[in-house]
Amino acid sequence: MLRVGICQLNLTVGDLDGNVERMLAALAEVTERGGDVAVFPELAVSGYPPEDLLAKPRFALDCQAALEKIAAATGRCAAVVGLPVAGEGGELFNAAAVCANGAVAGVERKAHLPNYGVFDEQRHFSAGTPEALFDIAGAAVGISICEDIWIDGGAVEQLVAGGAELIVNLNASPYNIGKLDERLGVLRRRIERTGCPVVYVNLVGGQDELLFDGRSLVLDAGGSVTARAQAFAEEVLVVDVEVGRRGGSATLDGGALPRIPVSDRPAVTPAPLPVTPPAAPLEPSDEIYAALVLATRDYVTKNGFTDVCVGLSGGVDSSLVATIARDALGPERVHGVLMPSRYSSDHSVSDAELLCDNLGIEGRLIGIEPAHDAFEQMLAPAFTGLAPDLAEENVQSRIRAVVLMALANKFGWLVLTTGNKSEAAVGYSTLYGDSAGAFAPISDIWKLQVYELARRRNAVAGAALIPERVLAKAPSAELRPDQRDSDSLPPYESLDPVARAFVEGDKTVGELIAAGADPELVRRVGRLVDVAEYKRRQGPPGVRVTHKAFGKDRRMPITNRYRGEARD
Amino acid sequence: MLRVGICQLNLTVGDLDGNVERMLAALAEVTERGGDVAVFPELAVSGYPPEDLLAKPRFALDCQAALEKIAAATGRCAAVVGLPVAGEGGELFNAAAVCANGAVAGVERKAHLPNYGVFDEQRHFSAGTPEALFDIAGAAVGISICEDIWIDGGAVEQLVAGGAELIVNLNASPYNIGKLDERLGVLRRRIERTGCPVVYVNLVGGQDELLFDGRSLVLDAGGSVTARAQAFAEEVLVVDVEVGRRGGSATLDGGALPRIPVSDRPAVTPAPLPVTPPAAPLEPSDEIYAALVLATRDYVTKNGFTDVCVGLSGGVDSSLVATIARDALGPERVHGVLMPSRYSSDHSVSDAELLCDNLGIEGRLIGIEPAHDAFEQMLAPAFTGLAPDLAEENVQSRIRAVVLMALANKFGWLVLTTGNKSEAAVGYSTLYGDSAGAFAPISDIWKLQVYELARRRNAVAGAALIPERVLAKAPSAELRPDQRDSDSLPPYESLDPVARAFVEGDKTVGELIAAGADPELVRRVGRLVDVAEYKRRQGPPGVRVTHKAFGKDRRMPITNRYRGEARD
Repeated sequence: MLRVGICQLNLTVGDLDGNVERMLAALAEVTERGGDVAVFPELAVSGYPPEDLLAKPRFALDCQAALEKIAAATGRCAAVVGLPVAGEGGELFNAAAVCANGAVAGVERKAHLPNYGVFDEQRHFSAGTPEALFDIAGAAVGISICEDIWIDGGAVEQLVAGGAELIVNLNASPYNIGKLDERLGVLRRRIERTGCPVVYVNLVGGQDELLFDGRSLVLDAGGSVTARAQAFAEEVLVVDVEVGRRGGSATLDGGALPRIPVSDRPAVTPAPLPVTPPAAPLEPSDEIYAALVLATRDYVTKNGFTDVCVGLSGGVDSSLVATIARDALGPERVHGVLMPSRYSSDHSVSDAELLCDNLGIEGRLIGIEPAHDAFEQMLAPAFTGLAPDLAEENVQSRIRAVVLMALANKFGWLVLTTGNKSEAAVGYSTLYGDSAGAFAPISDIWKLQVYELARRRNAVAGAALIPERVLAKAPSAELRPDQRDSDSLPPYESLDPVARAFVEGDKTVGELIAAGADPELVRRVGRLVDVAEYKRRQGPPGVRVTHKAFGKDRRMPITNRYRGEARD
Repeated sequence: MLRVGICQLNLTVGDLDGNVERMLAALAEVTERGGDVAVFPELAVSGYPPEDLLAKPRFALDCQAALEKIAAATGRCAAVVGLPVAGEGGELFNAAAVCANGAVAGVERKAHLPNYGVFDEQRHFSAGTPEALFDIAGAAVGISICEDIWIDGGAVEQLVAGGAELIVNLNASPYNIGKLDERLGVLRRRIERTGCPVVYVNLVGGQDELLFDGRSLVLDAGGSVTARAQAFAEEVLVVDVEVGRRGGSATLDGGALPRIPVSDRPAVTPAPLPVTPPAAPLEPSDEIYAALVLATRDYVTKNGFTDVCVGLSGGVDSSLVATIARDALGPERVHGVLMPSRYSSDHSVSDAELLCDNLGIEGRLIGIEPAHDAFEQMLAPAFTGLAPDLAEENVQSRIRAVVLMALANKFGWLVLTTGNKSEAAVGYSTLYGDSAGAFAPISDIWKLQVYELARRRNAVAGAALIPERVLAKAPSAELRPDQRDSDSLPPYESLDPVARAFVEGDKTVGELIAAGADPELVRRVGRLVDVAEYKRRQGPPGVRVTHKAFGKDRRMPITNRYRGEARD
């Protein structure tokens, strides 16, 4: 039995002092509760992912100095601390230091470095190999980092072959829909093969486009979840963990590993902790919504802002974003801005006003007609004799961005932008217009999901927080008389699945047509997706909730003539 | 002796049909001139870098089909063709196919996959190992790809150990200042160790932020350059290359490699080709300028545009960008837009008009006062009682972006943005204002270099193409009365070296202070550089000319509290 303190903390990239302070507080709490070891997430000292901060040779040295402060604070209760560690040739390792009794007892280095999706670990790190086990309070503990536990025959299996009685796995595992089941599958497979219990510690909190969901886990040697930390919240979860293998189906490769003494058993065996049943998982829509709220809060506050503003059109996207912002920051920190034009419907203003009332947020009305008129006059000589088109529509959207940015600049607010993933996919937005802003809470949410989340939020509130008419009316940009999204785009019921197949499924036009999709629809959507790359490249970061968001997940060339028309 | 056709082509990512067409024409030319082998750049079929197009399983299949067309066109003259090739488990290789007599004779796979700087090859590719030599017209040829030749003891040395008499190295090696010398150093080192001559074929042309400079090379077994293709231009260079090792200082590891028969010697020994001396290298400023011109032309034309517009302030940045655009596209395709405000100096308009005259480009004047007045009126209720500050300044810059984008949208132009690297480094720009645009020709040029390039362009012209007063006056954004850059920033003579040390040298504040720099200056610049990350993230691609441009080269978190103050 080992008393483990799972320190599921919300840390910040580059905030070495702040991270150490939070870790010291958690260590004190675990120590106070009789813990044998406090376990922190992957790269806890630096925050995750530090990206090219790692290119500064000084950065790893500063992390090392920060580690010394944590090591100095340890006593019998050990601490397993993730941080970047420089090797002798200046190469870097994604490492975990095991500290106790005021010193660093040893270091384990991540063996499997993900370099796909949002991960670039081979850009920065060299791979380690399992080197030792750590004797913590009488248990032989194998320390592993994130990907190490995903690989059949990989580092974790070598640790168990080497004699580990418990695997401690440090993670910075980003959220996406379905991720918890994916993780449970991996952990159960590893336990099925090794018979070794696992303590899985995850980071929590937002970092640019990534959100770490926490939900740290303990699984026993039979693969059952015996403890689970909260979703989307910090927690220091202290649990008694049975150590020792029970079976295991795989023939494990790897010799016995040396053992590094770390800490003694407690002088007095403590009374067992009461067992609290694992928290129940959230409903799918609630899980996604909670992810958006935390990611938005963290982006705003970790970047030193307190308040945000949102342009409110009376449509569902901006209504949902304002609601997320209110739930993230509180109503007094959210400023709605209503910017009607000559083409705005009456309900665009009245619905936005009702939303502001429902949310308890400020609603400020700044009509854009003066600037709209002025630009028409300024552009008239150039545009004489030419029919109105997208150029005139985009001017209106850009005027609104000028207004929002002026308010943000003047009052120190951060602009939230309201585009969804369907719009981002097909470029149905105005660059430097409605796409302008510092953060995009729903940029990874398809339009049909936007409605789902809005309806679910109303259901949770037990009231039409987002007015019913907002959910009922046909989507429109209102940039010309009687405009509808459906004038320019296929209906979202057709658009979303096709765009999703291109973006998240990496399908080509030819493949989708061969699979029976409407050729005209597929060609049209495929072309729109490809051509919008230049707009997405200039978009702000948004919250990643799928396995493939725009941004780090999907690195497409802008200059790109591939049409993917071959069908065979 | 092998007659080699170096096909230094300007290919386009994803343009499989277009690339094949160009390659077939070059192959015909090499065949016609008695060549034994035509050699194409790395990933020629797909273009380089295809980035996440490689995530579409269909893409490599389409490249394979494109290769078949080239293979079918070969006769005795072989073709060495770079393309992505799928392995049996679905993994991808960065490969070179050797074709002759209508078929693919064999494939070699890149062994060393760069995953640093602008490169993400481990994201997409698995590593190969040298497998065979190719008997082409009687010579044992070792085929290698780019990085393979950079590594001591790596794939190229294994090929020579295995019996290669000539190394053919396919490249997509991006330009940066000093790159030619770096390449020559690597090639000479490899030849010094192996004694084996090298044919180094490089791609040419722009691809988003990357520019490939061509300058393909032939080095003999003594390390002397015997042929060099043009810089920044396509060329099919047919040369007679001596094959066979001569010495070599290293003990090479690796057994004899199997040999794949490809093609016969010519029936009749051709008369030797006249030897033309290698082209002389360009002057440093001319080299950089030529890079900017080609990259700008390729970005515009490969994305299907013909015309560009540039906002002209009468300052040196916009003047240089307009000149680059004129040299890239011709004067009739460049549209200067003069957008004075109440704060613009008289010379801002007259200098810009003179520039337009000198360049022979259109200069269109659209004063921004109507919109400026309108926004003041619209924002007055919100801004009552508050002192004017950056908010009001940014409004003017954003009005200009609205005008430029309206013209671009209406006439199908592409907006070039005019920010330099000094501004990008410290965030001295208005997001959605002067930073708005599709492409940034000088975003990797420090302000002091902007002056150098402008002066040199005038010297080459033998006239003040860029008016003398533009070069003489103090830099100003002209967003308030009598504004100067030096009101907000240290003089560029102080700013540039410090910002460069942070950005290109990966130094920290603490290190620079410890090295004796002015602490106040260093802290101020360091803070500005860090805080501007969110602006850079939304900037357009620009031309990379240093070893570390903003963008792919430098992937910094936005949310980042690292200040790098430690000094020891």
